[in-house]
Amino acid sequence: MSLDPGIATLLKRNADGLVPAVVQDATSREVLMLAWMNDEALSRTLTTRRGTYWSRSRQQYWVKGETSGNTQHVREVRIDCDGDTLLVLVDQTGPACHTGATTCFTDRTLLADAEAADA
Amino acid sequence: MSLDPGIATLLKRNADGLVPAVVQDATSREVLMLAWMNDEALSRTLTTRRGTYWSRSRQQYWVKGETSGNTQHVREVRIDCDGDTLLVLVDQTGPACHTGATTCFTDRTLLADAEAADA
Repeated sequence: MSLDPGIATLLKRNADGLVPAVVQDATSREVLMLAWMNDEALSRTLTTRRGTYWSRSRQQYWVKGETSGNTQHVREVRIDCDGDTLLVLVDQTGPACHTGATTCFTDRTLLADAEAADA
Repeated sequence: MSLDPGIATLLKRNADGLVPAVVQDATSREVLMLAWMNDEALSRTLTTRRGTYWSRSRQQYWVKGETSGNTQHVREVRIDCDGDTLLVLVDQTGPACHTGATTCFTDRTLLADAEAADA
């Protein structure tokens, strides 16, 4: 499956041929996770509307939810102004994080919202 | 300004000592941009609550809005489950993108929302 050449020319990949993909819940607007795509992962995602990434640790393609059942139906994909980041809007089934949390950012706050704490 | 050691141990940096920071508008929940931080940029961001990044192209620190006036007041900073991505929630003044667009993802859609198009 090869990536549309018109899209391929927009992509500014890192030295490993990858671009970061910010994955956001289309409904809650929560940022769920950050994953990485190469051309093939992007092509598969655009074609199948299933969130498909490149696992840097396992060095293989990875369809989100294929094992866990916590799939991502891809609603929309955007690329940023300089072509080096993707934004993937999804309908997330179940928790997005492998820890069981709703998002990968749920549990660890480095700086709290002072205004919310004051309220 | 050095980063709190408790936070520094959580960070999983890339080969250049950087982690991607997803920047999200705290109110609209739109994803505004993706930028990069090293320990010092994160420390400055946590301390000053002004969005501060490392510019890979210019190889220097960069306080968002210092030139344009389109500043970011940082409401909250989170780190993801495996420590290699930051989520920065901000109050964005003016457009976030250097193109003048609200977000860096405003203009370029690779895959449209089929359900929205059908509606």
